[in-house]
Amino acid sequence: MAQEKNSVVVFSAHSGDFVWRAGGAIAKSAARGDDVHVICLSFGERGESQGLWRQEGMTMDTVRRVRREEASSAAEILGASTDFLDLGDYPLSVDESAFDTVVDLLRQYQPNTILTHVAQDPYNRDHNMAHEVLLRARMVAQAMGHQTENPPIGAPQVLMFEPHQPEMCGFSVDLLLDITDVFDLKRRAMECMGAQSHLIEYYTDLAVRRGVQAVRNGGSKSITHAEAHARLFPVVGGELV
Amino acid sequence: MAQEKNSVVVFSAHSGDFVWRAGGAIAKSAARGDDVHVICLSFGERGESQGLWRQEGMTMDTVRRVRREEASSAAEILGASTDFLDLGDYPLSVDESAFDTVVDLLRQYQPNTILTHVAQDPYNRDHNMAHEVLLRARMVAQAMGHQTENPPIGAPQVLMFEPHQPEMCGFSVDLLLDITDVFDLKRRAMECMGAQSHLIEYYTDLAVRRGVQAVRNGGSKSITHAEAHARLFPVVGGELV
Amino acid sequence: MAQEKNSVVVFSAHSGDFVWRAGGAIAKSAARGDDVHVICLSFGERGESQGLWRQEGMTMDTVRRVRREEASSAAEILGASTDFLDLGDYPLSVDESAFDTVVDLLRQYQPNTILTHVAQDPYNRDHNMAHEVLLRARMVAQAMGHQTENPPIGAPQVLMFEPHQPEMCGFSVDLLLDITDVFDLKRRAMECMGAQSHLIEYYTDLAVRRGVQAVRNGGSKSITHAEAHARLFPVVGGELV
Amino acid sequence: MAQEKNSVVVFSAHSGDFVWRAGGAIAKSAARGDDVHVICLSFGERGESQGLWRQEGMTMDTVRRVRREEASSAAEILGASTDFLDLGDYPLSVDESAFDTVVDLLRQYQPNTILTHVAQDPYNRDHNMAHEVLLRARMVAQAMGHQTENPPIGAPQVLMFEPHQPEMCGFSVDLLLDITDVFDLKRRAMECMGAQSHLIEYYTDLAVRRGVQAVRNGGSKSITHAEAHARLFPVVGGELV
Amino acid sequence: MAQEKNSVVVFSAHSGDFVWRAGGAIAKSAARGDDVHVICLSFGERGESQGLWRQEGMTMDTVRRVRREEASSAAEILGASTDFLDLGDYPLSVDESAFDTVVDLLRQYQPNTILTHVAQDPYNRDHNMAHEVLLRARMVAQAMGHQTENPPIGAPQVLMFEPHQPEMCGFSVDLLLDITDVFDLKRRAMECMGAQSHLIEYYTDLAVRRGVQAVRNGGSKSITHAEAHARLFPVVGGELV
Amino acid sequence: MAQEKNSVVVFSAHSGDFVWRAGGAIAKSAARGDDVHVICLSFGERGESQGLWRQEGMTMDTVRRVRREEASSAAEILGASTDFLDLGDYPLSVDESAFDTVVDLLRQYQPNTILTHVAQDPYNRDHNMAHEVLLRARMVAQAMGHQTENPPIGAPQVLMFEPHQPEMCGFSVDLLLDITDVFDLKRRAMECMGAQSHLIEYYTDLAVRRGVQAVRNGGSKSITHAEAHARLFPVVGGELV
Repeated sequence: MAQEKNSVVVFSAHSGDFVWRAGGAIAKSAARGDDVHVICLSFGERGESQGLWRQEGMTMDTVRRVRREEASSAAEILGASTDFLDLGDYPLSVDESAFDTVVDLLRQYQPNTILTHVAQDPYNRDHNMAHEVLLRARMVAQAMGHQTENPPIGAPQVLMFEPHQPEMCGFSVDLLLDITDVFDLKRRAMECMGAQSHLIEYYTDLAVRRGVQAVRNGGSKSITHAEAHARLFPVVGGELV
Repeated sequence: MAQEKNSVVVFSAHSGDFVWRAGGAIAKSAARGDDVHVICLSFGERGESQGLWRQEGMTMDTVRRVRREEASSAAEILGASTDFLDLGDYPLSVDESAFDTVVDLLRQYQPNTILTHVAQDPYNRDHNMAHEVLLRARMVAQAMGHQTENPPIGAPQVLMFEPHQPEMCGFSVDLLLDITDVFDLKRRAMECMGAQSHLIEYYTDLAVRRGVQAVRNGGSKSITHAEAHARLFPVVGGELV
Repeated sequence: MAQEKNSVVVFSAHSGDFVWRAGGAIAKSAARGDDVHVICLSFGERGESQGLWRQEGMTMDTVRRVRREEASSAAEILGASTDFLDLGDYPLSVDESAFDTVVDLLRQYQPNTILTHVAQDPYNRDHNMAHEVLLRARMVAQAMGHQTENPPIGAPQVLMFEPHQPEMCGFSVDLLLDITDVFDLKRRAMECMGAQSHLIEYYTDLAVRRGVQAVRNGGSKSITHAEAHARLFPVVGGELV
Repeated sequence: MAQEKNSVVVFSAHSGDFVWRAGGAIAKSAARGDDVHVICLSFGERGESQGLWRQEGMTMDTVRRVRREEASSAAEILGASTDFLDLGDYPLSVDESAFDTVVDLLRQYQPNTILTHVAQDPYNRDHNMAHEVLLRARMVAQAMGHQTENPPIGAPQVLMFEPHQPEMCGFSVDLLLDITDVFDLKRRAMECMGAQSHLIEYYTDLAVRRGVQAVRNGGSKSITHAEAHARLFPVVGGELV
Repeated sequence: MAQEKNSVVVFSAHSGDFVWRAGGAIAKSAARGDDVHVICLSFGERGESQGLWRQEGMTMDTVRRVRREEASSAAEILGASTDFLDLGDYPLSVDESAFDTVVDLLRQYQPNTILTHVAQDPYNRDHNMAHEVLLRARMVAQAMGHQTENPPIGAPQVLMFEPHQPEMCGFSVDLLLDITDVFDLKRRAMECMGAQSHLIEYYTDLAVRRGVQAVRNGGSKSITHAEAHARLFPVVGGELV
Repeated sequence: MAQEKNSVVVFSAHSGDFVWRAGGAIAKSAARGDDVHVICLSFGERGESQGLWRQEGMTMDTVRRVRREEASSAAEILGASTDFLDLGDYPLSVDESAFDTVVDLLRQYQPNTILTHVAQDPYNRDHNMAHEVLLRARMVAQAMGHQTENPPIGAPQVLMFEPHQPEMCGFSVDLLLDITDVFDLKRRAMECMGAQSHLIEYYTDLAVRRGVQAVRNGGSKSITHAEAHARLFPVVGGELV
């Protein structure tokens, strides 16, 4: 049976989130032939670019340009397209026009699966805002009476990727995604991000730990790296898994 | 790629639970070639045999015999083996020896997947007891130092089937299992149970509603019947589903 | 003892919600002599009018007109007045002026009881928005320093009616409302809605199931139809019920 | 319409709990003509009799006798019968025979309503144990196949009375019971308990605070004293309250 | 060892909240030499000034002036500075410019600890709004790329003070703060508030009850008054407390 | 001011748990002069001794002896005494006599603080059992009427140490304990355990991550290693921390 080609949308509050938290999922999907589209709501220019701001004479324009380039390179390595909505961060702000753009993109990409942030993160309210905007846009994109060039979308699953401090966000793992065979791509994408090497080590270690957990939870012993995701909606399927 | 043959254990507090709540899952698994083993902790002879007790001159022995026959017939139709532990119901009581039997059965069957009751049902504490015993037995059956004829088990997933009043039990659906192509078997199994026809209608209606929900949640439009299940542990997999 | 006349407000995100989810409660209250006021925030013109949009050449104006007529007829059958705020749906948007209108209506109607949507529905964020707006407006309408023609309201109970997928919304039932003697009115109101007959069957079946549950939870055996509601605030009373 | 006579069972882990936590509910029910039966699982002789143990030369027998007399007097004032099961406290221990006695009493009293402790109190596990035993016994007492002199019970509501530190027990109030007109009885019953006067003041103050809350939540302004209770099961009724 | 001087910010939706709910915490901190800054988002002029509005011929201007004076006096007694942002109440509304002011104040005060309202209070949505705005502003004030005169803040703990009906707000106590030695200051501050004496008695009684609870939870027997607070973030420390 | 000497009890289901999960807390407390007592309910001989069982010809007696020696050595390094109750594991079983022993030990050690397992771990029900037994024993040890050689205990705080998969156990961090200056002791204690080196690496990495988190949550920048703990009861204190 020929495998169906899926469309995956990754809805990222800041332009780095998708790499650290969902890089494996993106590479895995792209590798099997799916279309993967990363939507970055902001560049994380104010809140998540410490490395750049520590450089002498840094300007906002430069931060945004560099962050855009880094994210574009990372996405390319992972195999995803990118849309940068440039809505500002800390705080992220999504007005009516930006919201309509999000709806249009969902209709254009017709995703089977959407990856985004958790609903409650006390450390980072931009992440919550992205979650809320995504759920609202998904609803509008489904509405028959919202008439646009592209037709309504179906009922894509929403997966929430792992936040930085999962136990403070009520994050409970539903899927340990085996990213063993694409981890080198995730690593290369992380290396684009201009972040300190300790962050790359952090997420490499996390992938190894999640890999160990995958094996302990019944996964194949060949798994060495994994990513944790939580699901919002029920899975529909014909197998008892 | 040849499909792997799985082993599924269904851990049922009373001898009717597995039919109403997991009949579709059992038939579905058996139909794809899995081994399915139903373990009935009790016959539900005191708490779930109203139809029999309403008959003049009914005795406990007769109730147990009839319930056993009904459950055996239903399991046969669905394609599962049966073990009746005869531990009594209302309240279900699992002593040390019975517990050891459960562990032995888990080691004998080496399940990939286990189906059982939810952890909290204010109406039916036998169901909670079954849940707790299963989790404890799963843990013991995994222990290398618990030495029996059969080797330790792996890390089988535990799925909780839908309780009678899901919204009073904190039941949140993780899997809408498509049982369209085996629903006639579930219906025939339900007909073995000597229950009033309204119960058969109830679970048929429930399957239809869950089927509609499956389609609304992105499932194939060909789905007409489904069963709802909740997962206890993360799924390990290579697909974003 | 003569029964006190109550005022009931039903706060409905879209113009169909009040019929499907609270039609029995409305008819029941009206039948005992209460004043019942339905406030529809939108016509559900974009997100909940699939039947109309499937018709050739449909326009937004027509959809809104038809939805208004349907809702008016249904409310009339149930015995309630209607206010249509026409705020748009998918997404529902409530600006300052609309918010003030809601507060004014609450002060005008002086409700003892308010019915509205749940706080968390991952499928439908308009419903959550209605819940939040209602709680905020209730608070303002209680404030002595918010000065309007009508005096402040008391402390009306807020009941949340059953969402479409209760187990995905954390909905736990507090009240199984016996609607046996008004169900024919609810059915007639549902028939006004221009929806496909399967939706009418769906909510009829739901009422029957909730009726069975009512009997199982100690209600009179004469109950055949019920509606499920959840309460936000404590009940104050002199009886242990 | 003549009011129906109800049967109320109060299931109290220690012989003082029913007075402090449910004295108002008992007096209120008795005053309207209901039968009220207090079942004390233990005398609280080890864990809740500090006043007695501080007396020179105190013995276990004396503590139990005094506690029994105090509880009997209090119940008489409130208008309830008493059963003392004498199962020991700290820890409360309910063996099979004691469990059967509980089931028998439930069948004998045929309650419409049962009052007991919350499910989770980190300070007092005897209270949790009482909750669990009650739910299990209620289930068995409902079973047709559990055959005793008295017939099966219906589906009595279970109300949980307020624990000492409600915010540590996940206690959320469902019912603010107006006990204004029976508070003098509760006070007299509390005075039987041989406790230090500060406890009497504590529960008097609590009743006043809950009374204020009742008024703030829409109750009659004549309410001066109330008790807080939480419900386990849905209420079935014909009124929107 | 010389004690470090801390900076504490109290983020109060209405100008009375900080006195009733955190007066002890403020006085305690000020007494040990900390800088304490109260930020009042509104005067509570519409929703929490019943006493004033009951006076003949009262105007909004007078209410605001009186409320400001009362809060200033109370803060002075407790030992805190005050900022009045005058954003209006019932509903509290925080636009972009007001939000920036909050961020600026956080950067100016560089708090180690912030006190504010709980996240969910069904009775008072202004309180929730204050909680959300605080979390968002804390995040922005931490961002290196948000460039202002004052440098980014660290990671101040956020404590939530006790809401009026804690059991309806999911409030679970993390800290019972001993305010014994400053309670006379809290009492004097409460007396500034122009509220009815019963409110002063209410919060005095609450402090006594929380004091009793503190002793019961292992605190020194010398504690007679306490305040309850809940923490949002983990404590970092070197002691097992 | 001379520091008070505390008594700390660590209540460990299996003889390895205290090392991996609380080794830092133990060493930290012992280093400041506290008495620390480890109570091991079992040797983890069946479920947590894989390394030993993989050796040819291993016997239960040998496993228990080796596990006892390892735990004794580790405790000695950390600075704690040990009690081995030898109650068996997988499943852990605590009969009445063993329960009395636990109560006696609590009264003997008079702890200010107790460390134990979480309440809900779906992977390991022995851990839950230890939690429940501890709470019950704490209650009995507090009871004045439970008369033993040693007097009743006070109200010790209960800290829950981090389970292996915190996000599956509802574990939310309350305390990030700085163990920087005792980490070498924890490492040496871990090296006693005969476990594979990867486990030592795992817990070293975890300590480093928790250390990073401690700094991010406002802790001193000198922190390099930490342990996460959750509290069951409120802290009583005079500081806003």
